[in-house]
Amino acid sequence: RGSTASFHSGSHLSQLLSFYRSVRETSEYLAESLSDGDATAQSMPDASPAKWHLAHTTWFFETIVLNAFSSAYCVFDEKFNFLFNSYYNSIGARHPRPKRGLLTRPSLDEIYAYRAHVDEGMARLVESGVSPAAVELIELGCHHEQQHQELLLTDILHLFAQNPLRPAYKSAAPLVVEPNGANELAFVAMPGGLIDVGHDGKGFAFDCEGPRHKTFVEPFRLADRLVTNREWIEFIEGGGYQNPLLWLSDGWAKVLAEAWMMPLYWDERDKGNYWTMTLRGAQPVDPAAPVCHISYFEADAYATWVGRRLPTEFEWEYAARDVMRAGNFLDSERLRPRPAPVGGNGVRQIYGDVWEWTRSAFSPYPRFKPAAGAVGEYNGKFMCGQFVLRGGSCVTPASHMRPTYRNFFPPEARWQFSGLRLAEDA
Amino acid sequence: RGSTASFHSGSHLSQLLSFYRSVRETSEYLAESLSDGDATAQSMPDASPAKWHLAHTTWFFETIVLNAFSSAYCVFDEKFNFLFNSYYNSIGARHPRPKRGLLTRPSLDEIYAYRAHVDEGMARLVESGVSPAAVELIELGCHHEQQHQELLLTDILHLFAQNPLRPAYKSAAPLVVEPNGANELAFVAMPGGLIDVGHDGKGFAFDCEGPRHKTFVEPFRLADRLVTNREWIEFIEGGGYQNPLLWLSDGWAKVLAEAWMMPLYWDERDKGNYWTMTLRGAQPVDPAAPVCHISYFEADAYATWVGRRLPTEFEWEYAARDVMRAGNFLDSERLRPRPAPVGGNGVRQIYGDVWEWTRSAFSPYPRFKPAAGAVGEYNGKFMCGQFVLRGGSCVTPASHMRPTYRNFFPPEARWQFSGLRLAEDA
Amino acid sequence: RGSTASFHSGSHLSQLLSFYRSVRETSEYLAESLSDGDATAQSMPDASPAKWHLAHTTWFFETIVLNAFSSAYCVFDEKFNFLFNSYYNSIGARHPRPKRGLLTRPSLDEIYAYRAHVDEGMARLVESGVSPAAVELIELGCHHEQQHQELLLTDILHLFAQNPLRPAYKSAAPLVVEPNGANELAFVAMPGGLIDVGHDGKGFAFDCEGPRHKTFVEPFRLADRLVTNREWIEFIEGGGYQNPLLWLSDGWAKVLAEAWMMPLYWDERDKGNYWTMTLRGAQPVDPAAPVCHISYFEADAYATWVGRRLPTEFEWEYAARDVMRAGNFLDSERLRPRPAPVGGNGVRQIYGDVWEWTRSAFSPYPRFKPAAGAVGEYNGKFMCGQFVLRGGSCVTPASHMRPTYRNFFPPEARWQFSGLRLAEDA
Amino acid sequence: RGSTASFHSGSHLSQLLSFYRSVRETSEYLAESLSDGDATAQSMPDASPAKWHLAHTTWFFETIVLNAFSSAYCVFDEKFNFLFNSYYNSIGARHPRPKRGLLTRPSLDEIYAYRAHVDEGMARLVESGVSPAAVELIELGCHHEQQHQELLLTDILHLFAQNPLRPAYKSAAPLVVEPNGANELAFVAMPGGLIDVGHDGKGFAFDCEGPRHKTFVEPFRLADRLVTNREWIEFIEGGGYQNPLLWLSDGWAKVLAEAWMMPLYWDERDKGNYWTMTLRGAQPVDPAAPVCHISYFEADAYATWVGRRLPTEFEWEYAARDVMRAGNFLDSERLRPRPAPVGGNGVRQIYGDVWEWTRSAFSPYPRFKPAAGAVGEYNGKFMCGQFVLRGGSCVTPASHMRPTYRNFFPPEARWQFSGLRLAEDA
Ligand SMILES: [Fe+3]
Ligand SMILES: [Fe+3]
Ligand SMILES: [Fe+3]
Ligand SMILES: [Fe+3]
Repeated sequence: RGSTASFHSGSHLSQLLSFYRSVRETSEYLAESLSDGDATAQSMPDASPAKWHLAHTTWFFETIVLNAFSSAYCVFDEKFNFLFNSYYNSIGARHPRPKRGLLTRPSLDEIYAYRAHVDEGMARLVESGVSPAAVELIELGCHHEQQHQELLLTDILHLFAQNPLRPAYKSAAPLVVEPNGANELAFVAMPGGLIDVGHDGKGFAFDCEGPRHKTFVEPFRLADRLVTNREWIEFIEGGGYQNPLLWLSDGWAKVLAEAWMMPLYWDERDKGNYWTMTLRGAQPVDPAAPVCHISYFEADAYATWVGRRLPTEFEWEYAARDVMRAGNFLDSERLRPRPAPVGGNGVRQIYGDVWEWTRSAFSPYPRFKPAAGAVGEYNGKFMCGQFVLRGGSCVTPASHMRPTYRNFFPPEARWQFSGLRLAEDA
Repeated sequence: RGSTASFHSGSHLSQLLSFYRSVRETSEYLAESLSDGDATAQSMPDASPAKWHLAHTTWFFETIVLNAFSSAYCVFDEKFNFLFNSYYNSIGARHPRPKRGLLTRPSLDEIYAYRAHVDEGMARLVESGVSPAAVELIELGCHHEQQHQELLLTDILHLFAQNPLRPAYKSAAPLVVEPNGANELAFVAMPGGLIDVGHDGKGFAFDCEGPRHKTFVEPFRLADRLVTNREWIEFIEGGGYQNPLLWLSDGWAKVLAEAWMMPLYWDERDKGNYWTMTLRGAQPVDPAAPVCHISYFEADAYATWVGRRLPTEFEWEYAARDVMRAGNFLDSERLRPRPAPVGGNGVRQIYGDVWEWTRSAFSPYPRFKPAAGAVGEYNGKFMCGQFVLRGGSCVTPASHMRPTYRNFFPPEARWQFSGLRLAEDA
Repeated sequence: RGSTASFHSGSHLSQLLSFYRSVRETSEYLAESLSDGDATAQSMPDASPAKWHLAHTTWFFETIVLNAFSSAYCVFDEKFNFLFNSYYNSIGARHPRPKRGLLTRPSLDEIYAYRAHVDEGMARLVESGVSPAAVELIELGCHHEQQHQELLLTDILHLFAQNPLRPAYKSAAPLVVEPNGANELAFVAMPGGLIDVGHDGKGFAFDCEGPRHKTFVEPFRLADRLVTNREWIEFIEGGGYQNPLLWLSDGWAKVLAEAWMMPLYWDERDKGNYWTMTLRGAQPVDPAAPVCHISYFEADAYATWVGRRLPTEFEWEYAARDVMRAGNFLDSERLRPRPAPVGGNGVRQIYGDVWEWTRSAFSPYPRFKPAAGAVGEYNGKFMCGQFVLRGGSCVTPASHMRPTYRNFFPPEARWQFSGLRLAEDA
Repeated sequence: RGSTASFHSGSHLSQLLSFYRSVRETSEYLAESLSDGDATAQSMPDASPAKWHLAHTTWFFETIVLNAFSSAYCVFDEKFNFLFNSYYNSIGARHPRPKRGLLTRPSLDEIYAYRAHVDEGMARLVESGVSPAAVELIELGCHHEQQHQELLLTDILHLFAQNPLRPAYKSAAPLVVEPNGANELAFVAMPGGLIDVGHDGKGFAFDCEGPRHKTFVEPFRLADRLVTNREWIEFIEGGGYQNPLLWLSDGWAKVLAEAWMMPLYWDERDKGNYWTMTLRGAQPVDPAAPVCHISYFEADAYATWVGRRLPTEFEWEYAARDVMRAGNFLDSERLRPRPAPVGGNGVRQIYGDVWEWTRSAFSPYPRFKPAAGAVGEYNGKFMCGQFVLRGGSCVTPASHMRPTYRNFFPPEARWQFSGLRLAEDA
C-alpha cells in the first residue's frame, strides 16, 4: 500500500479516474477471448478462475472504497461479499478457495454487470471529490487489479495446459523467432557498500516495499542477462534433475515426489526436441529466450550446478537503480519471454520477460508496520516461507513495475512466469 | 448388456431408431437450462460435468458402434477418444477422471455439433440395415445414455449445492405439497421359498442382471412404503447420528470424519426447521416424502435403530414381481421424491422416488460371464465394495427400469437419489 | 460367538480351564523370542504390537468375564481399559489404533504381570463354578485369543519385513524342501443343489457362522489343490500385473498406486530368482508351495487370467463337509505354507497352509442377529466391504478351525497368510 | 562445521579425546533410564528413536572419520550405513526416516556394542596422532552428537506425551517452585549501527555461523526476559488463538487445521488450571517460568497481540555480545525452563531455558560456502522455509552454546524447547 499516494491533489483526480478506467478496461480486454466455461474453471487450489479475478478486483473497490466512502452507493448483490473476498479475515467469512471453480453462477455476463455497476459508482464518487484516504485506497485498488491481471493470464495458462487439446489463449501462429541467440553470459562487477533500499514514499508502492532503510552489500558480480533455455537444456541433459547434491533438501523431496524433469509445461517430443505450453498454444522451446516456469528450488539448483548463486533482493535492487524501466511487459502482447538483446555491454532484461527469483526470504523491512484495517492483511501476513522475486514478467503491466517492487511466492511455485539471473561473490 | 436384445428383427429397426432418437433428444432437453459454465464444472471426482455426460454417451456410439460397424463413418475428432472414454481400459488411455472439469474446450456448442455428427452417422447406419450384434450394442448405448441422464441431473444437483447462491436447475417455485401425510407404516408378509431371480433374457437387460437362477428366500415381511423424512427426523433428533452402536464400523468412521448429522444437502435453519437443496433450489423438507440422499451406512443404522433391517436384493425382486412398473420417474419432471399414496393396502413406491438400498453386496450371479470386448468392462469390474440398489428414482427415465435392474454404489455414496425401505424376518 | 457353548455342564469345567490355560500358554510361547522393542513396535495402522495382542486378549477376559461375573476380582490397572480396548464402543473411549506402537509403557514385563493377575482371577472364578453365560464368554475369550495368536505372528512378520536386516522370528535355517512338486492341477466335480450351510449350534462357533440355513448351489468344479508359487510366477512373467483387463477396477487402481508387481514380501534378486520374507527370515520362494500374501484383487485377477473364478464361500463349505480337519496349522511350527501332498485323488489342502479367498462378500446370514452387549460388536459391524476367507493357515491354531469358519478381510489386504483355490462352472 | 577447529596442535590431542569421551558418555548417561521399547519407538516422522540417535552419532564418527582416516578400523556392520545415515545423499541410500521406529533390531544392547567398537577405534586413531583435517571432523562429530543429545530428550518427551500413562523420563517429584515470580517486563535500549555479526573462525562453529560480516541494525529495544507462562495464559484467555488478525496466514491455517488452543503438551484440567507434560511427567504450569513448546506462528501472533515484534537474529546476537554464557542448560538436569532471576537490571535468560524464535529466516550469510564433501550437507541444504532460533535451552549441553549459534526449525515446529523474547523499534 502506498505510504504516499500520487494522486492526492484535487487537480489530479481526473488523472486518477483515467488510471482507474484504463486498468478496468485492460482486465476486460484480457478476458475477451474466454468463454463462460474458460472463465469459470479452476485448475488447482492456488489458481483462480478468470471470472473470480474479474469479480474479486471489483469487490475490492466495492468493499474497501465505495462502502466506506460513498453514501450514495448501493451494494450490487449482498452475497458477493462472501463469494469474492479472497483472504481478508477482517471482512468476514468467505467461499473456500479450492471451490472457486464451482461457482458457475453468477455467470460471466453477471460479473460484467457487476463491474459496470461498481465502475459507475466509482466514477460518481471520484467526480464528486474524494479525501486523500480514499485516493490512496483507489490507487491501491488499481494496482491490486493489475496484480490480478497478471494472475488471470498465469492461471489461464495453467488451465489450458491441463487440456490435452492445448488451446491457445491468443492466436497460436508461431512468433518470429529473433535471429540471433543471446550473447555469451558476462558478469558485471558491483562495488556494494552501505546502501539505501526500499521505497522512499514518493508515488505509489505496496506497504512491504518500505520503509526505505540502510543495508550493507558486499561487492559482487551480477550476470548481464537471464539464464536461457539453451543453458537450461544443458542442465537437464547434464543430469541436473538427477543429482540430489545440487538441491535444497525440500527441493529434492519435490523433485522426487512430483517427478520433476524439466520446467513446468515442457515436454520432450523426441530426444532433445523440447516443446512448451504457452499462452499462444504449444510451441517449440526457443533456446535463446530466458527459461520460465521454474521454481525457486530449480533456480537454486541450477546456480549451484554452475558454481554461482542467486542474487539477494538488495543486490538486484542496487543493480536496477540506474536501469531504464522498460522491457517485455504485458503491453507488448508478446505474452512470452523474449531473448536478450545482443551486442553492447551492461546488465539487460532487468525488467519484464520473467520474474527473477532472489535468495531473499520475504521478510519485513526494519520498522515495517502493516497498514491499519483490512488492507493491512495485504502483504504482511504472508511473510513466512516465501522468496522474493523482482523485475516483473511478460504478463506484468508496465505501469505496475518499480525497482522496489517485491513479488513473493513459495519456493515450489512453478506456474508463475519465473526465471533466474545468476550472481557471484566478487 | 442385453443377453437378448429386443429389436433384432429387421421390421423393428425403425422402432430402434425412434428409441435412439428419443433418448438422444431427452439428454439435450435435460441440458437446456445449463450455461456453458454449468455444463463444464465438476464438483467432485465422483461426479462428471454435464458436458462430459453429453459427449461420453456420444463417444460410446461412435466408438462401440460406428467405428465397428460403419465403414462410411468419419470420426468427428480423434482427440475425443482420449477425452471421453470413461473407464474402458481395452480402448486405451484416457483423460484423468478428477480433471474432467478442466476441459473448458471443447465448448458446449462443439459438443452439440459432435452429437449431431454422430446422430447422423447412426441414422445412416441403422437405416442401411444392421446386424443383430450391432442392434444389441445400439440398444446398450441407449440404456447407457439413460443411465447418464440420471447421473447428469444427480451431478448438477451436487454442483449447484456447492454454490452459496443455491441455484435452481428448474423453476424454484415450491411444488404443491400433497395434503395427506403417508400412511402408518405397515409390513406385508412374504412367504419366500426357492425362487427364480435375475433377468430371463427376454428384452434388454444389463449383463449383471443375469443369468436367471434359483435362490432360497426365507419368509420375511417387507415395509409397504419407503421411510419418510418425518421418520428420519426422529432418528436425527433421537441421537441416531451420535450412537456408534447403531453403525457399521466403517460407517461410524465416516460419521466422525465428515461430521454427518443429517442427510446430504440438508441444513437446519432453526431448531427443527430442516431445508434441503433440490433440483428446484433450496426447499423445506417435506415430512411425508421419502428420505433421500442417504448412504448405505445411514440406511443400515436407521434400520438397526428401529429394530429392523434392509431387505436383500432378492427379497426386493421377489416382492416386486407382481407390482405394476409405474411411479414417480424422471418423466413426471417433479424431480424430487413424492409422498406415498395414502389408503389401501399393499406395497407401494416400489418404483421411482428413490433408489432403495439393499443389504446385498453387488456380486456376480452364478454362471455370470462378462461380455467379450470393451462392453465386458461395463459392470463386472465393479463387483467389489458396492451395494445393490433397486427400483429407480425420480430422476430415472421410466423406460429404463425393470424388476431385475441392479444399480450399485459404494456404501458411503450420498449424492445419488437413494433412500430405504425396511424389512424384517418373519 | 457360540450359540451353544461346549463346556456347559459342570463336569466339564476342568476341561474348560485346561483349554483356557493351554490357549494362554500358547500366546506366551509365541512371544518368547521377542525383545521388548519387537513387542512394542507397530508397523502399520492395521497391525498391532505383540505386546498389545498379549494385553488386549487379557483385557477381554478382565472386562467381559471377570468384571461381570467375579465379585472377588480386583482390576489390575484402571488405565488398561483405555489402552487395550480394541473397538468396543459400548465399553467406552480407547487409545487410537494407529498409536498403539507408541505405548512403550507398560513394558512387556508389566504385561506378563497383567496376564498372570488375570489368569489367577480366571482360575479362581472357574474353580468356584460359573454360570452357562460365563462359560460361553470364557470360551469366546479363548477363541478370541487364538485369533490374536495368528494376528500376532502375522503382524510380527510384517514388522520384521520392514527391517532391512530381515530378522527371523524363528531359526532361519532353510527347511527341507519336499522333493516332489505339486500334482498337475485337477478339478473335482461337485453336484450342488439346495444345501444347508452355516453352523448348527453344536459346539463353539462365532455368531457370524450361523444360523444354519438353506442355500442353492449350482453344479461346479473345484480345484483339488491351492494355486502354487510356480503358477503364480507364470502369472507375473506373463504380464498379469500389467494388464488392466484382468483386474477389478479398484484392484487395478491399487496395482498402479502401490506398484504391485508380485506378492507382498517377494523380491526378485536376479531375473527369475524370487525370494520372500518369512517368519524364518528371507528364503527362496518354493515353487511347489501355495502362493501366499496376496490380496483378493490378485486372487481374482489370477483366476480371470486362467479362465476360472474363485469359489463362493458356500461352494467351499460344501466341498469341505467331508474333508478331515487336518493340515499345516500353527501346531506344526513350520510357519509357512507347504506343497500339497502328491499322488491320489481328491481335494486337498482344504485346511491350513493359506486362507482361501472366496468371492463371497462378508454378509449376514438369514436371521442373523448380533449378540446383545459388547460381544455383539464382535463381527456384525464389519459386514461391509470385506470378503470371506476359509480354511485357516499355517499360523492358525488347529483347534481354532471349523468347516463353517468365516474369516474376513478387505480386498486389498495382503499381510495375512492368504492364497487361493480355483473353481469353475460345471 | 568449524572453519578453524580448536584442537589442532598435537599437544591438544588428549584434550580432544577427553572432549570426545565426555560427549560420548553423556549420550549414554541420558539414555540410562530408557527401556529397549522406549529407545525403539518413533512418535512422528520428525522425531527419531533414542536408539537411532545413539547409533547415528556413532555412524557419523565411523563414516566421516574412521573410514576416511583410519586404515586399521574395521566397519562394525556394513548394513548400519544404510540404517543410520540421516540425510547425507553423498553417502548413499538410507532407511526411510518415517520408518526408523520399526528397527526393533539391532537392539539397544547391540547399539551399545557398536558405540564401544567405534569408541575404541576413535581412541586408537587419536592416540596415534591425527591430521588437522581429521581433528576438525572429530570436533564436528562431537558437536553433532551434542545436537543429538538435545534431540534425544526432545523426542523422548514427545513420545512419552503420546502415552496416556504420562511416564516421566526422570523422577516426577515436583521441583521446588522458586518463590518469586518474574520481574515486570522491561525493555532495554540498544543503539544499533553498522555491526559485525557471525563467527570469527576462532574455535569451533558450524559452517552456517560464518563468515563474519557487516550488517546494519537500526536502534531497537529488547525485552529483558523471556515471555512467561503467566503472560501466555493471558493471551489464551484473551482470545489469542481465536483471532485470525493476529496470525500469519500459514499460521492461522495451522491453528484451524490442528485446533491449536494452547502450547503443545498443555491441557486445561479445570478452568484456568493448566498442566503440561515435561521430562518429569505431567506437572502444573509454572506461571513465572518461560513459555515453552510454541511454534514460530504462536510466537509471532503473541508479539502482534502485545504490539511488539520478535527480534532479528542479529539484534539478538548484538544484545548477547556482552552477556555471560551461562544459564539453565542440560547440565543443571532441571530439564525444564526456570523463571528469570528477579531484581537488578539488564537483559537476562539470554542463554538456556528455551530457544528464542527470531524473525530471521535461516539464510546463508554473505560469502557463505558449504564445506566440500558430505559435511557440506550439514546445514546449507536446509536454508529454505526455516526460522533461526538463538540461545539454547534447558536440554542443550552448556559447552555446545555460542553467541553466534544458529538453530533453525520450520515455523510450525512445536516439539522443540522453544519460546520467545519480545523486541520493539526504538
Ligand atoms: Fe486480491
Ligand atoms: Fe458411461
Ligand atoms: Fe480382539
Ligand atoms: Fe545428525
